[in-house]
Amino acid sequence: MRQRADLPFAMEEYERRMNRVRHEMVKKGLDVLMVTGPENIFYLTGFETTGYVCYQALFIPLDAEPFMITRILEETGVQALSWIEITRPYRDDEDPWVHTRDVLEEFQLHTKRIGYERDSWFFTRSQQEQCFNLCSQAAFIDCSGLIEGLRVIKSEPELEKIREAARYAETAVRVGIETTEAGITDNSISASMHYAMIKAGSDPPAVPPYIATGPRSAIGHATWSGRTLRIGDCVFLEPAGCKHRYHAACMRTGFIGDPTPSQREAEKIVKEAVEAMVDRIRAGAVAAEVDAVARRIIGSNKIGLQQRARSAYSIGLAFAPGWDEGAIFSCHPGETRILRENMVFHLIPWGLVPGQFAMGLSETIRVTKTGCEVLTNLPREVFVKAPVRSLPA
Amino acid sequence: MRQRADLPFAMEEYERRMNRVRHEMVKKGLDVLMVTGPENIFYLTGFETTGYVCYQALFIPLDAEPFMITRILEETGVQALSWIEITRPYRDDEDPWVHTRDVLEEFQLHTKRIGYERDSWFFTRSQQEQCFNLCSQAAFIDCSGLIEGLRVIKSEPELEKIREAARYAETAVRVGIETTEAGITDNSISASMHYAMIKAGSDPPAVPPYIATGPRSAIGHATWSGRTLRIGDCVFLEPAGCKHRYHAACMRTGFIGDPTPSQREAEKIVKEAVEAMVDRIRAGAVAAEVDAVARRIIGSNKIGLQQRARSAYSIGLAFAPGWDEGAIFSCHPGETRILRENMVFHLIPWGLVPGQFAMGLSETIRVTKTGCEVLTNLPREVFVKAPVRSLPA
Repeated sequence: MRQRADLPFAMEEYERRMNRVRHEMVKKGLDVLMVTGPENIFYLTGFETTGYVCYQALFIPLDAEPFMITRILEETGVQALSWIEITRPYRDDEDPWVHTRDVLEEFQLHTKRIGYERDSWFFTRSQQEQCFNLCSQAAFIDCSGLIEGLRVIKSEPELEKIREAARYAETAVRVGIETTEAGITDNSISASMHYAMIKAGSDPPAVPPYIATGPRSAIGHATWSGRTLRIGDCVFLEPAGCKHRYHAACMRTGFIGDPTPSQREAEKIVKEAVEAMVDRIRAGAVAAEVDAVARRIIGSNKIGLQQRARSAYSIGLAFAPGWDEGAIFSCHPGETRILRENMVFHLIPWGLVPGQFAMGLSETIRVTKTGCEVLTNLPREVFVKAPVRSLPA
Repeated sequence: MRQRADLPFAMEEYERRMNRVRHEMVKKGLDVLMVTGPENIFYLTGFETTGYVCYQALFIPLDAEPFMITRILEETGVQALSWIEITRPYRDDEDPWVHTRDVLEEFQLHTKRIGYERDSWFFTRSQQEQCFNLCSQAAFIDCSGLIEGLRVIKSEPELEKIREAARYAETAVRVGIETTEAGITDNSISASMHYAMIKAGSDPPAVPPYIATGPRSAIGHATWSGRTLRIGDCVFLEPAGCKHRYHAACMRTGFIGDPTPSQREAEKIVKEAVEAMVDRIRAGAVAAEVDAVARRIIGSNKIGLQQRARSAYSIGLAFAPGWDEGAIFSCHPGETRILRENMVFHLIPWGLVPGQFAMGLSETIRVTKTGCEVLTNLPREVFVKAPVRSLPA
């Protein structure tokens, strides 16, 4: 472990994380852990790249110095951005699995019990089979979720990053609201939101903001597409800000011209759902019950508003293509796990009326012993823009 | 197939693509093809979302109407953005594999020969095992690359999208160059590049621009990070523009203050490498030989410039986290396949001097019968910014 002061976290934080991982390795009887998730590699070492689309892995021997295998292109980043001292990069024309076998032999790990992340997007089934076939003397043991289980509770330094990310998300929403008017395109809103958020200090979020207007606001995961805004449009904004790969997100919804009574009713329902969740959440609350309070409120509406997704997901450390940690922990019906202090969630009791509009007034929150702390800070209400551009006096 | 005029491509283009897929299915003896790659789903149907982090699949029976399984949240998008008529969405609290088995039984496909994409990032090994175990009467046959093999040659309508994307990438580079000056942060460059590119019309690129300055320019895949620019800095810019998920990218490199003789030499070498590739490329050229002309030129330098990656990769249709189609086709040593007309490549004979600077002057090109057409259009040279901000007269 190279001691250095220029990583996203202090060395003590990395040491603490590595110690906890090794503790889990002992419990599982592992000699080595092979880490392929880009979030997990960043969490443990500080190394980040967009190049995780190609095979790379952090190897953590229980009793020896960790080392990394990456493309030779990425080796510059491992040196510059992490505490890792030992690297064994491969060339683009080399077989990475032959290389991996040779490196494991070099470190005499090729006959050991090796934990790996079977659920990793970027360690595909084909890659796993090639790797395991070549390293046939090793025992590979699925350890999916081992590091995620540690990541789900945030430390104080991680919370600082998320708080900073929340400021960037708020900035983006505020500028999105300012920019919205009939006659411009959704690209103009996106351009301004990106400008403001990045200028304010945001790192690249794992996913660009969702900016969906008019009927597109009622399409799940839609974003800008060159559409011209019209009077009467719903405008749905959902950016995530990012600091050192930690995210906070929030949704706000508005209209060009006065909302209809149904749209006002949707605002009331969704606001009530968010606030009921905020009231219910505390360390020890059951995830399904947190989901249920929102689902009950939205489910009883008479305006055709549909809740199509889980009510909350864990948020924090992320790389593209997802900013959420929903695969680690989500609040949906049937989830019996309990919330714990310093988990962070994006509360999204969000609804849509198909073909018409969406309504989201979401918040990123931290679970506390006795309740929750809302980390995003914007008026929790619909914004309304004048239907005609106001002219200078 | 719902006939509609508001998709990214005309219905004839989708019909042509589907016919070619079914032709391949016949050759492989498949009854059904299960498509899980988001690029491939978009290519065939027009449906796009960022929600492919959760399981979704397009099923193409050989002799019946295709249908889609997605989260219920995404079903709005399938209806709004594609020609698909039959959808079978699942709820967040349902088991998607039980659901998939039930749907296959509904359509009496559960005993058939089903092609699937084993190499799919978003159909993980664990998911594949759950799916195949539940659908134990079907025969699942790996068809990774089936659709990619069709995608690698671009049609005229696809080339139009790529040409449009090239305009956005150029806009971003031009604004990045304008913005660069000592004393600002790399976030300011990023903010301006995003603003200009999106305002000009770009859809969200699969990856944000690479904007790496000073020593960070020599880190593979680094981007903005709040660093303040200094006199003498190298400034490396590499955006991709995007239209309807089709990308074009280019790299340009500059300096604040006069480049050193080594940096000028690097410019000369890299420019020569790009131009040698442009000269060499034509339908019928062997990929490894195209790579070799660049590698030879860069390899013979005396300034410590290292080429750490392949010399070119296929580019076009992409979703996060990669904008390239490099897994489909790249030019690197040992690649014996030949280039064909209307393949599109990003030529990246790119070099770095570790810890100091990078040099990239890349282009996106189309392979023609007799040569190649350069699609990105910017001065192929280093940009130099005055070391002191010019004051108004």
